[in-house]
Amino acid sequence: MSEARVTRIGLLGRGTVGGAFHELIADRADAVEAASGIRPEISGVLRRSEGDFESILEGSDLIVELIGGIDPARDYVLRALRAGKPVVTANKQLVAQCGDELFEAARSAGVQIRYEAAVAGAVPVIRVVQEGHGVLPIERISGIVNGTTNFILSEMASTGASYADVLARAQELGYAEADPTDDVNGADAAAKMAILARLAFDTRVGLEDVSFEGITEIRPDDLAYAKDLGLSLKLLGVAEKHGGAISVRVFPCFLYRGHPLAPVEGPFNAVTLEGPTISEITISGPGAGGIETASAVLADVSSILTGEAPVHFADRRLEILDDLESSFYLHLEVADEPGVLARVADVIGRNGISVKSVVQQGTGREASLVMVTHRAPERSFYAALEQISDLDFLGAAPRAIRVIEKEYS
Amino acid sequence: MSEARVTRIGLLGRGTVGGAFHELIADRADAVEAASGIRPEISGVLRRSEGDFESILEGSDLIVELIGGIDPARDYVLRALRAGKPVVTANKQLVAQCGDELFEAARSAGVQIRYEAAVAGAVPVIRVVQEGHGVLPIERISGIVNGTTNFILSEMASTGASYADVLARAQELGYAEADPTDDVNGADAAAKMAILARLAFDTRVGLEDVSFEGITEIRPDDLAYAKDLGLSLKLLGVAEKHGGAISVRVFPCFLYRGHPLAPVEGPFNAVTLEGPTISEITISGPGAGGIETASAVLADVSSILTGEAPVHFADRRLEILDDLESSFYLHLEVADEPGVLARVADVIGRNGISVKSVVQQGTGREASLVMVTHRAPERSFYAALEQISDLDFLGAAPRAIRVIEKEYS
Repeated sequence: MSEARVTRIGLLGRGTVGGAFHELIADRADAVEAASGIRPEISGVLRRSEGDFESILEGSDLIVELIGGIDPARDYVLRALRAGKPVVTANKQLVAQCGDELFEAARSAGVQIRYEAAVAGAVPVIRVVQEGHGVLPIERISGIVNGTTNFILSEMASTGASYADVLARAQELGYAEADPTDDVNGADAAAKMAILARLAFDTRVGLEDVSFEGITEIRPDDLAYAKDLGLSLKLLGVAEKHGGAISVRVFPCFLYRGHPLAPVEGPFNAVTLEGPTISEITISGPGAGGIETASAVLADVSSILTGEAPVHFADRRLEILDDLESSFYLHLEVADEPGVLARVADVIGRNGISVKSVVQQGTGREASLVMVTHRAPERSFYAALEQISDLDFLGAAPRAIRVIEKEYS
Repeated sequence: MSEARVTRIGLLGRGTVGGAFHELIADRADAVEAASGIRPEISGVLRRSEGDFESILEGSDLIVELIGGIDPARDYVLRALRAGKPVVTANKQLVAQCGDELFEAARSAGVQIRYEAAVAGAVPVIRVVQEGHGVLPIERISGIVNGTTNFILSEMASTGASYADVLARAQELGYAEADPTDDVNGADAAAKMAILARLAFDTRVGLEDVSFEGITEIRPDDLAYAKDLGLSLKLLGVAEKHGGAISVRVFPCFLYRGHPLAPVEGPFNAVTLEGPTISEITISGPGAGGIETASAVLADVSSILTGEAPVHFADRRLEILDDLESSFYLHLEVADEPGVLARVADVIGRNGISVKSVVQQGTGREASLVMVTHRAPERSFYAALEQISDLDFLGAAPRAIRVIEKEYS
C-alpha cells in the first residue's frame, strides 16, 4: 500500500461555520479519502486574533474562506487563487460583489473556486444549476433564499403578531442577528440571486444589477388578507430570462396556492428552477445553519479533490431589464366617505391599469380598501401609486405588494 | 479550428421518451458540444419492427436504452457494456432487478452506466444522492416516486371520489396506463427505492429486497379522516439505515402536517434525503413525462461526454431488516353495540400495543371505529390485526395504514 496523498487545507475563519467545518473534516476525512484517494487535513487556521495569512497560504494546498464580508476576504481569496491554490468559500457577498474579479483570477491561474455554501446552505442548488448548464436551459429561478425573513413572515402569518414583535422573537431564537438589516431589507437575498443568475444564464451579474425590497413594511393586515384568500406571503428572489436580456429582483409577494414555494415555512430555503425541458424542479432544505453550511463546504472540497469539472465562468454580459409587468395588491387606509373608491379608481384607470378585485374592510375612519390589479407595466403602477399617495383622504402611506399568479392552469 | 469530435449514439426504443430524446438531441447538440467539446449525433435507432441491434451497436460510441422492461433490454445493455460502450438508461426495472450484473459488467469493461432518468424524471435525485455519497452520509430517503398514485390520492382527497372512479379519470387524462397494476400496487415505486437505497447506502439492493404495498384498498373514509386531522395520505417509499442494516419499503401512510412531502400534490415526484450533516433536503418536480425523462437522459449523456465521475458501484451487501416499529391508523367497520370497543382494546393491549386515540363515527350498523396506535413493533400490530379480523362484529375486513409522525418538535 502506498502512503495516502494529503491535501493541506488552510482554514480562514473559525466562527460557527468554521468550527463546524473543522469538526466535520476530522469526522469525514476517511470518507473523502475513500471517494477521492486524497486525505484532507487542516494545516492552518486564521482567526481574527491569531495566525498569519501568508504563512497559512504557504503551508496549504487549498484555501477554505469562511471569514465573510469583503475585506480582507477578497484580498485573501485573490492571493490564494493567484498562488495557484483552489478556493472554497461560503461568502455570498464576496461572490456577488467581486465575482468577475475572482473568476478571472481563478481562470488565469487554472484553479477552481467553488461556492455551493454561499446559497442555501446544504441545499445543493449551485450544483444542480451548474450541471444542467447549457444542456438543460433555465428560463426562471425563483427562490426563498433568506431563512430569517421566511421565519418572520411565517410567524407573522401564523400568530398575527407585528413585524417588530416577531423580529424580536426571531432574534431571541437565533434566527435573526442582532443587526438584521441585510436580511430584512433583501440585500442578503439579492446577493444570492445574483450568484444564481450568473450561473443559470451564463452572464456577468453583480449585486449592483439586482433590485431589492425587504419586508420591513409588511403589516399583519397584509398577512390576514393572504390567509383569507389562501395565498402565501413570501420574500422571493426572481431571476428571469427575457429573450436576450435578464431581470434579477427580490421583493415580497403573494404566491398563489399550489406554487411550489408556497408551502415553504419557517427558516427554510427553497429554489425553483423552470425551463422548457426540465419543466420545474424545486430543491429545499434548512437554511444556513453551521453544520449544513459546513457540509456544503466539505462537498465542494471533495468535488475539487475528485476532479469534478469547475464551476463555469461567464464571459458575456446580458442586458438587465428593470421595467417588467406585474400584478399588485394595493392596501389603502381611507376614510369611508362617498367618492373615495371612484377617485382611486380614476387614478388607476388613467395610468392604464385594470383592477381585478376590490374589497373594502371596516367602516368610518378605520376603513381600508384592498385592490388587486391585473398585470400591467410596473412603471405605470408606480406612477399611479405616487398619484394615489397625494390623495387627501389617505390615513397612511399606501402599501403595494406584488402578486404572483398561476401562469398555466 | 479543428473539426468537432462526434459521439455516435445508438438509440434503443422510439416511444414517447425515445421520440422526445431524438428531438432534444437535435435541439441541444450545440449546447452539449459547447459543454464537452464533443457533438452528440444519433447514429442508429432500434424500433420494435425495425433495425438490427448488432449493427447499431457497431456503429455507435454510446447506447441509450429506452425500451423498458427486462427482455431484451438486459441483453442489449450487457452486450453494449461488454463491447466497451457506455450506456444511459431510463429503465428502472432493469436497474432495480439486474443492477449487480449491469454494474459488474460496466466495471469490468471500464465504462459508465448512468440512470438518472430511471427515478423521478428530470428531478436530479440520483445526481444529488451520488454526489453526497460517503462524504455527506444519508440516513433516510423518503420519496413520492410514483406520479400515478400521487395523482390518484390527491384527487381522492380533493373530490371525495372512490379509488375506482379516480383511477378511471386518471386513465382518461393519461396519468395512469391502461394496465396500471405496477403503479397502483407499489411495484414501480419499489424499483425506484431499490435504486436509491443502493446508491445512498452503498449496498447491493435489488427489487426482491423491497417490501411494498399499494393504494388499491384506500377508501374515501381514510382520506376524510386525513383531511379532518390535517394529515396527508401518500404512497411513500422509505429507505433507512439502522446501524449496519437497512430497510427499504413502500406503503401508503399518513404524513403529519409540515412533513416536507405532505404538500406534494398531483402527478409530482419528490424525494427527501436526511442525514446528520445535511439535515434534510427535498427535491421535487413533475414525474416522468416524455420531455422531462428525455432531459434527464440527455444530462447523463452530457455527463459522460464531459468526463464526470461514474456512478459509484456497491461492493458490500448490508442486511435487510423487515421488523420495524410504526404507528398505525386502524379503521374498523363495526356494529355500534356495548362491549365492542372493549373487545378490540383487549386484543390490542394483549399484543403490547398502546392506543393514542379512538374515535367512533356514526351509529348503529354503519358505525366505524378509528384508532391510532403509538409506535410498536409491526409484527405485534399485524398479530393483533389478525386476531381483530376474527371478531364476529366486524362489517368488513379491518384497514390499517401507517402514520408518520414528527420526530422532533
